[in-house]
Amino acid sequence: MLSDQKTKNDMAEARARTTVAVEQLRNFLYGGESKWGIHYRLLRIISEDPTFDKSDRPFMTRKDRYKRAIRMTNRVYELQNIHGWSNAETAEALDLIDEDLPIHLSSATFDPVFLDQCGPNLREKYGELVANRGIQGTYLQTELAHGSDVASLETTATYILHTQEFEIHSPTLTSTKWWAGAAGRTATHGVVQAQLILPDGKIMGPHLFLVQLRSLDDHKTLPGITVGDIGPKALGGYATVDNGFARFDHVRIPRENMLSEYSQVTENGQYIRPPHAKLSYGGMMAVRSLLVGKGAWVIAKAATVSIRYCTVRRQGGRGSDGLERQVITYPGVYYRLLPVLSHAYIFITLGRNLLEQMTVMSKQLASGDVSMVSEMHLTSCALKILATTMGAQDAETARRAMGGHGFSEFAGVGRYYADFLPATTYEGDNFVLDLQIVRGALKAYHSLQSIGLSAEAAAQLPPSSAYLRFLLPEFVTKFAEPDWRNPQQVVVLLEKRAAMMVRNRADEANFDASMDSRVSKAAIDAYLAGRIHELIENMPHVLSIREAAIVGKLYTLTLLTLVEAGLVDILSFGLLPQKSGGDPSRGLRVSINTLCTELLPEVIGLTDAFGFTDWQLDSALGVYDGSVYEQLWACAQMEPLNKEEPVDGYERFIRPVFRRGRQLSAGQKPRL
Amino acid sequence: MLSDQKTKNDMAEARARTTVAVEQLRNFLYGGESKWGIHYRLLRIISEDPTFDKSDRPFMTRKDRYKRAIRMTNRVYELQNIHGWSNAETAEALDLIDEDLPIHLSSATFDPVFLDQCGPNLREKYGELVANRGIQGTYLQTELAHGSDVASLETTATYILHTQEFEIHSPTLTSTKWWAGAAGRTATHGVVQAQLILPDGKIMGPHLFLVQLRSLDDHKTLPGITVGDIGPKALGGYATVDNGFARFDHVRIPRENMLSEYSQVTENGQYIRPPHAKLSYGGMMAVRSLLVGKGAWVIAKAATVSIRYCTVRRQGGRGSDGLERQVITYPGVYYRLLPVLSHAYIFITLGRNLLEQMTVMSKQLASGDVSMVSEMHLTSCALKILATTMGAQDAETARRAMGGHGFSEFAGVGRYYADFLPATTYEGDNFVLDLQIVRGALKAYHSLQSIGLSAEAAAQLPPSSAYLRFLLPEFVTKFAEPDWRNPQQVVVLLEKRAAMMVRNRADEANFDASMDSRVSKAAIDAYLAGRIHELIENMPHVLSIREAAIVGKLYTLTLLTLVEAGLVDILSFGLLPQKSGGDPSRGLRVSINTLCTELLPEVIGLTDAFGFTDWQLDSALGVYDGSVYEQLWACAQMEPLNKEEPVDGYERFIRPVFRRGRQLSAGQKPRL
Repeated sequence: MLSDQKTKNDMAEARARTTVAVEQLRNFLYGGESKWGIHYRLLRIISEDPTFDKSDRPFMTRKDRYKRAIRMTNRVYELQNIHGWSNAETAEALDLIDEDLPIHLSSATFDPVFLDQCGPNLREKYGELVANRGIQGTYLQTELAHGSDVASLETTATYILHTQEFEIHSPTLTSTKWWAGAAGRTATHGVVQAQLILPDGKIMGPHLFLVQLRSLDDHKTLPGITVGDIGPKALGGYATVDNGFARFDHVRIPRENMLSEYSQVTENGQYIRPPHAKLSYGGMMAVRSLLVGKGAWVIAKAATVSIRYCTVRRQGGRGSDGLERQVITYPGVYYRLLPVLSHAYIFITLGRNLLEQMTVMSKQLASGDVSMVSEMHLTSCALKILATTMGAQDAETARRAMGGHGFSEFAGVGRYYADFLPATTYEGDNFVLDLQIVRGALKAYHSLQSIGLSAEAAAQLPPSSAYLRFLLPEFVTKFAEPDWRNPQQVVVLLEKRAAMMVRNRADEANFDASMDSRVSKAAIDAYLAGRIHELIENMPHVLSIREAAIVGKLYTLTLLTLVEAGLVDILSFGLLPQKSGGDPSRGLRVSINTLCTELLPEVIGLTDAFGFTDWQLDSALGVYDGSVYEQLWACAQMEPLNKEEPVDGYERFIRPVFRRGRQLSAGQKPRL
Repeated sequence: MLSDQKTKNDMAEARARTTVAVEQLRNFLYGGESKWGIHYRLLRIISEDPTFDKSDRPFMTRKDRYKRAIRMTNRVYELQNIHGWSNAETAEALDLIDEDLPIHLSSATFDPVFLDQCGPNLREKYGELVANRGIQGTYLQTELAHGSDVASLETTATYILHTQEFEIHSPTLTSTKWWAGAAGRTATHGVVQAQLILPDGKIMGPHLFLVQLRSLDDHKTLPGITVGDIGPKALGGYATVDNGFARFDHVRIPRENMLSEYSQVTENGQYIRPPHAKLSYGGMMAVRSLLVGKGAWVIAKAATVSIRYCTVRRQGGRGSDGLERQVITYPGVYYRLLPVLSHAYIFITLGRNLLEQMTVMSKQLASGDVSMVSEMHLTSCALKILATTMGAQDAETARRAMGGHGFSEFAGVGRYYADFLPATTYEGDNFVLDLQIVRGALKAYHSLQSIGLSAEAAAQLPPSSAYLRFLLPEFVTKFAEPDWRNPQQVVVLLEKRAAMMVRNRADEANFDASMDSRVSKAAIDAYLAGRIHELIENMPHVLSIREAAIVGKLYTLTLLTLVEAGLVDILSFGLLPQKSGGDPSRGLRVSINTLCTELLPEVIGLTDAFGFTDWQLDSALGVYDGSVYEQLWACAQMEPLNKEEPVDGYERFIRPVFRRGRQLSAGQKPRL
């Protein structure tokens, strides 16, 4: 009896209605058929191994979640041996686990910083061990009182001339290292950001030092070091990672443990400067770039779950078939969900492109060429802000679109949100990064002003500030309302808006509290719009006609919703013609609705193309076959509270309340 | 060594700088000195009782959280006996616990529905028991496949003529009751919404039936009933409440167990209709009204924590005193936090006013007077949407303003968010309630059109649609830019916007996907603006001159940010004069910034006035004395992961990874 065919029928019918070639789109999203093939092979192995079963996860303590995390990590390395995976395949296998593991934090922060900056001696000694996981590192930058403002860090590294050692010390409570990924219980070594103090007492600013934290024999904490886990994170997010604290009590390390690729202290205490300040830029940018793709796949998962559930959920007025309406057909629902789907498609591709550019830049940096750094800094900041802010927001939008059941842990989307949310704050708080975007925009603006605004100068602008060409006099005519189905015209509108906003910000002495975040948004939107336009232009080269058209519409939808979200600026600067008595944004809004309704029959195909298995999504509401109510029922039967009858605590805490209540009702004075 | 005086000094200095009379404001917020006195007396008793200690809470499983919840509930009733508390005092004591308890759900949903609609026989038998907690109820409406659309519920209640019983039955999987508060493990009785089926097979729509779920002897589930907990909720929210499922397998109940205040089935199976459809409206409205005050206090807690932390957190450029800047002094920070503080002040007062009106309406309803129902329905919907949407959003804004440490569970604000978040969806999904607001607005508009737009007709408009008076021809002149410090002019702008939006919606055939949510927002904003204006006008009667001025500014801040958020509409309808080349919203934005900077020295006093103790906030970052880093350190030492060295799992799961890594690095083939 406890089955339900209706939702499964709805899903099968919706899937049959889809006209897009799902496999073609899937290969496109994964960057080619062979990449999908590798992905799927790894996915099968991992998801069929009982180590990676998720059914108990919702009921585990954080302590057990951590233990499960290290167990899964060990198993992936076992599987690497068994199947002879390459390091890239092993990394992909680790990424298939939908939890951040301690090893992820080591790989994302310690490894690039250490391998990039360690210098030849440390590389000789530790390079292989790091690459093969003979040791595990943690990157100790943030302290209780300071984070990305490294100049203010309080931990000291004092060079001791007569022993040729550095003494690492935490002089205050506030200098305690905090949040370091995998430091809490896992890592054996740390790269410590500390103020370098020379024998003459001169403070040289923050530098990096390798400090062993735990014994390689028994994993016990080494003398002089206090290290531990900082405790649970908000919303149950990131439960599997042992973000840690660390304190150093005059801990001595050899002189060679200073990371010396770019600066060194000689035996006799002389400081040797780095050749170029920008050379150590790579690490943070690389992490930011990774976050773009990560955000994209979070959005993809949230979109898939919510769109599937809203396809089989029926509610409200009955149609001619006697059935209630599928929730996805309500304008208030599809208007929220389809842009989410669109963002996933966009950021999956942009994230991959960004990583490819990062690889090019790394090679150039290795040969001392820093020409890409400034532009890559700006574009990686811009895309990091976009993909993480949108990632969190879209996951919550998708969750809330599911109504009541969306608040069940079994819906899964709350978990995606909680685990991804800190990305809006780490590797540069998005609100702080906004200021970097504004600084970059103003720099481009002023340099354009100084060389004189001309078509030649405008042609030299890099993609991050190409929108400034619309300050050229020939563009300062009022535009008619764009053709909203013409991406190029829409992009121009967003670029003009950014140009106006940046000029206004440069000219304005008395600016207000929110101006910088608005200017940053305008500049980022213009950059994104330019990239989306390129993607649309590129469609016919990578997809069949029909698929290119549909994905093109999906991309256009984000262009239009960017305009919609930027309407205040656009109307303020008169970039849309005012209509007497009417609403100048009407055409735009109607176009968004039309695009949505055209895309609606394809949404199951477009989400199937992400290639998610039920094991990956781990969502009762996002199951492939649509059996959402069966899944909710089955999940609830697992709840530990249901294992005892009466519930544990009844005799001591529930029964006495009823007893007193009955006594009171009978007019007796209740006994305690 | 592990102490830190700096943050404590910052807090003491900020507190000394405040000029507002904190006690006066506190009494104002609590509705008078005597109410504060009762509150504080209860607070002391509860917070000093070890039952209510919170220090282990972050590390508990949900099973233990539930057990702690029933333990705390029992203790409150013990304390009621010990101290001779009234029922109102006991209810307030239960509300002081910052977790939703099973008993809260019974009180908020089962009690009002049962006591309002049970009729004389059931009241005689169960009224006292319900009031004294001799039994505990659960309200079983929502099913797996249907929620607020009660007409589509599937559970049946068939009248059996020859035994004079109803047979309660769950015919399908999707008819399983789901989400019912306290049903999972606690409640003994349920009020079940079920389709009434008469002996002739006629289906009479959903009606209410009292069904005993568990034995009063041993609390075991009764025959024919399957009941249990639905499992954990998203984001770790609502962990203490046993939201439950329930299925009925042809369960027989006596005819008297139909709730018969408004409709009945006679012994021979005749249906007697309710006298007036609106009479049973009270319950849902009462819960919505409660949510306004609840949201207000969530916002107040989040604002207090975040403002306190941002006051003692220093970061960035150093001032003339050699110290880094207090984070709260950054425009990007105070611009986000001060509106949050403002919302708390507004909704605390509006929530109390709404409850007073509900009491008046209940009395009128009891004597058959339904004149207040329509307006109360609209205003309680409007304020529920506002207070819950803002409550969730503001809590997240406050959390994110705290940067990295805001993502620690110990920050507390994530917990406020997760526990409050479902309020945006339950008791009417805010997106669905928007449609009710639009319907109400259109009804008022059309009725105004039908009687003819005149000053007399406009004067009759109730507060929820008073903004429609701006459709009168005499108001259709273009306004100059308002004086942004003059609340009345700002309110007029928001009312004109609503009037334009509603007229536009009524005239527009081809409306788009987001129009209804925008129209709803405009109508709600106009209503809220009118109420804020009343509050400002009332200030001199309830506060001293200085305090009235400061709170007045705080209220005005929300008026201005409402305009800012509504700029697209305001610009679209030409309600702000366009400035050639410039930004028409400039004056508004600068005024917001000025207001914020004027309020900034008072924020510690304004948040102290909420009267929160450290026990209430349970936040390392929100402590009264500012010792945020000491608290974070102390909390982390409690983490169970830190209790073992090496960590549990090291031998089996960490060590093998290192061993294989060392073998690989030494050029050996690793063993499994």
